Amino acid sequence: MALRAALRGLLSCSSHGRLCASSISFSQRNNSSSAHLKVDHDQTTGVAVMHMQSPPVNSLSLDFLTEICITLEKLEMDKGCRGLIITSSQPKVFSAGLDILEMYGKSPERCGEFWKAVQEMWLKLYGSNMVTIAAINGSSPAGGCLMSITCDYRIMADNPRYSIGLNETMLGIVAPFWFKETMVNTVGHRNTEISLELGLLYKPAEALNIGLVDQLVPEDQVLSAATQTMTKWLAIPEHARQITKSMMRKSTIEKLRSNREADIQNFVNFITKESIQKSLRMYMEMLKQKKA
Amino acid sequence: MALRAALRGLLSCSSHGRLCASSISFSQRNNSSSAHLKVDHDQTTGVAVMHMQSPPVNSLSLDFLTEICITLEKLEMDKGCRGLIITSSQPKVFSAGLDILEMYGKSPERCGEFWKAVQEMWLKLYGSNMVTIAAINGSSPAGGCLMSITCDYRIMADNPRYSIGLNETMLGIVAPFWFKETMVNTVGHRNTEISLELGLLYKPAEALNIGLVDQLVPEDQVLSAATQTMTKWLAIPEHARQITKSMMRKSTIEKLRSNREADIQNFVNFITKESIQKSLRMYMEMLKQKKA
Amino acid sequence: MALRAALRGLLSCSSHGRLCASSISFSQRNNSSSAHLKVDHDQTTGVAVMHMQSPPVNSLSLDFLTEICITLEKLEMDKGCRGLIITSSQPKVFSAGLDILEMYGKSPERCGEFWKAVQEMWLKLYGSNMVTIAAINGSSPAGGCLMSITCDYRIMADNPRYSIGLNETMLGIVAPFWFKETMVNTVGHRNTEISLELGLLYKPAEALNIGLVDQLVPEDQVLSAATQTMTKWLAIPEHARQITKSMMRKSTIEKLRSNREADIQNFVNFITKESIQKSLRMYMEMLKQKKA
Repeated sequence: MALRAALRGLLSCSSHGRLCASSISFSQRNNSSSAHLKVDHDQTTGVAVMHMQSPPVNSLSLDFLTEICITLEKLEMDKGCRGLIITSSQPKVFSAGLDILEMYGKSPERCGEFWKAVQEMWLKLYGSNMVTIAAINGSSPAGGCLMSITCDYRIMADNPRYSIGLNETMLGIVAPFWFKETMVNTVGHRNTEISLELGLLYKPAEALNIGLVDQLVPEDQVLSAATQTMTKWLAIPEHARQITKSMMRKSTIEKLRSNREADIQNFVNFITKESIQKSLRMYMEMLKQKKA
Repeated sequence: MALRAALRGLLSCSSHGRLCASSISFSQRNNSSSAHLKVDHDQTTGVAVMHMQSPPVNSLSLDFLTEICITLEKLEMDKGCRGLIITSSQPKVFSAGLDILEMYGKSPERCGEFWKAVQEMWLKLYGSNMVTIAAINGSSPAGGCLMSITCDYRIMADNPRYSIGLNETMLGIVAPFWFKETMVNTVGHRNTEISLELGLLYKPAEALNIGLVDQLVPEDQVLSAATQTMTKWLAIPEHARQITKSMMRKSTIEKLRSNREADIQNFVNFITKESIQKSLRMYMEMLKQKKA
Repeated sequence: MALRAALRGLLSCSSHGRLCASSISFSQRNNSSSAHLKVDHDQTTGVAVMHMQSPPVNSLSLDFLTEICITLEKLEMDKGCRGLIITSSQPKVFSAGLDILEMYGKSPERCGEFWKAVQEMWLKLYGSNMVTIAAINGSSPAGGCLMSITCDYRIMADNPRYSIGLNETMLGIVAPFWFKETMVNTVGHRNTEISLELGLLYKPAEALNIGLVDQLVPEDQVLSAATQTMTKWLAIPEHARQITKSMMRKSTIEKLRSNREADIQNFVNFITKESIQKSLRMYMEMLKQKKA
């Protein structure tokens, strides 16, 4: 079951491998936009909605991660932005996670640069002063799940064809300690242990059951439910909420912040191993055959 | 919902602000009593019941905390006392928590003295060698919830008008790390995170569901249920139970014990800020209007 | 209830106190065997099944622990062995836990030797690179529960006459910190606290409910269910699974590994106390009367 689920859910390898710039769009309230992100920032409510639109499956490439980090930085600095909703413009997928093409056949330097960007995204999201809500309107494996569990709250589409989980092990790679700790902080030690050892992907109902997501709603109500929840969170005294959030997360954040270089080296050494490269190649070939 | 719940549950500001000494009472088996505590110590069973009777809502003022600490100290030293049940003589409330009047318009010295007494109560309760059971026969917000979760076991009245939770954030203040750790030890990291960030108060059924209380009983059976449970706990080999309790809690206790002064400074610096004082003033005015 | 449950479940004192060598048996696929262990190692699947057959109740004596450790060491070194299922050949009991006779009336040296063997078994099992599954086909108190929770997965017979738990406190002794941490990693802090303080034994349904076991099956299907589960686990990319398991457990393992001598001294000092020896004597006499 786990294997089939992994194949169903994890399509993290973008099919072209280059950035597609045609997807920029502008909404009425949009005040920030980049190649693969559409940000609707409502100045009245102080809520920004970040739509990920990196076809086909919002794979987290180095370029896309860099865009996300720049956008997060801007919103974090903007005192008019107090809440952030993250969602997807791509059908059926929230984000397929880290782009395998960034880990296959790349130089150690490039791999290190990529990993630094993954760290940066996590640090920015997990430590954000904004209220952050993941509006998970599609499958969310691996890095997509990581993004989700850095948020303050997770609302997922109640569609049994979608799944969510840190399933890195199924690809033959290993979730680093800060992925693990974020998950432990969300669903506890035992759920994390069995989940990471087996590379499990959970159906929405299962994810709700173990606390990996907080709420399920019909697929067409994910964003509206996120907006409603955001309103409640923004009614909480802000300064006290921020200090409390920081108190809950700072030890986990500090552990990565004081070990970034070692963590990068660790990733690069692991991912550039011949055996791991071979695993990734086999995985990508399996995906190709599945598509064909 | 959270806001309304907070207003409903948290009436932590005693209406007179001075101690009322008329409430001393004597029961047949009573062998210790102070202004706002009635202690029934049954020498046969080795169980003391501490009734909080500080009108109107058992707010934890410096004086009341001092009384509680002195009583706890006496019971702890008394080899004839092996179990302690904490309950309330006030209608509808267990304890409304820390007295806001102790935090508003007071000198830093006084604030520090107050906080030291809060620490002392927590240290005595969380580290007690006695079996401690909270017989929660009314609402138990903030410091009232803290008292409850220091105990070994919590039995709450199954009345949906009552609520329990560490809702400090709703007042614009922040639960300190040792409140947080006590709650994490009780309901886990994620429940604590969402609970503290939103300042949630839980209905009895919700509290049971996340493990914030252990048992619900009809309102008129809270004390008798606590007594029955105490009998079971006192049948356990005592020395082994005490060492085990200490093993489970000592790292949390040690963290405060070795940081008391810094924790006091941290509290005093925070609470005497103009913005926080303003929050407290607004909160108290809101309570007044609600009463009128 | 807890007391009766303890009496029902914990019969950890072997009735002869010497090793019975008549129970060696040979199965078709058996390729390793010692006095009280029958190991069926299927070279095709890479799965070894270790049957404990130390009458009457698989009490963990120094000799039996030594056999277990030697067998674990061999299997761990054998590249053809990737999965280990632990089960019992004795009726109604998985393992009754540490042999009380090893703790009663023995010299400090002997007690220390015994405790070192308990540590060694835990270190080998909790840190094993193999997939480990406990096929719990009978009661599993104290050390039997410890063995179970060191495994990656626990399948228990759905028979309400069986129970499982770390009930050391009921004997007047104390589970050491690494028993405690293994349990916290399995069922969380609060379940562990109440469980260890009261020395609770859980019926299979209760154990499933708190996560102490992962799956219940009819009694005659425990081993076949374990074999099926093993097949799924062995389909996971092995290297990634092993690194992940190590990441989840290494801090707990390291804590014991760097404190073995102090932990042994602590045990010896405690167990050789006159009061504890008296507790154990009373407990053994109670067991004798119960048998008579």
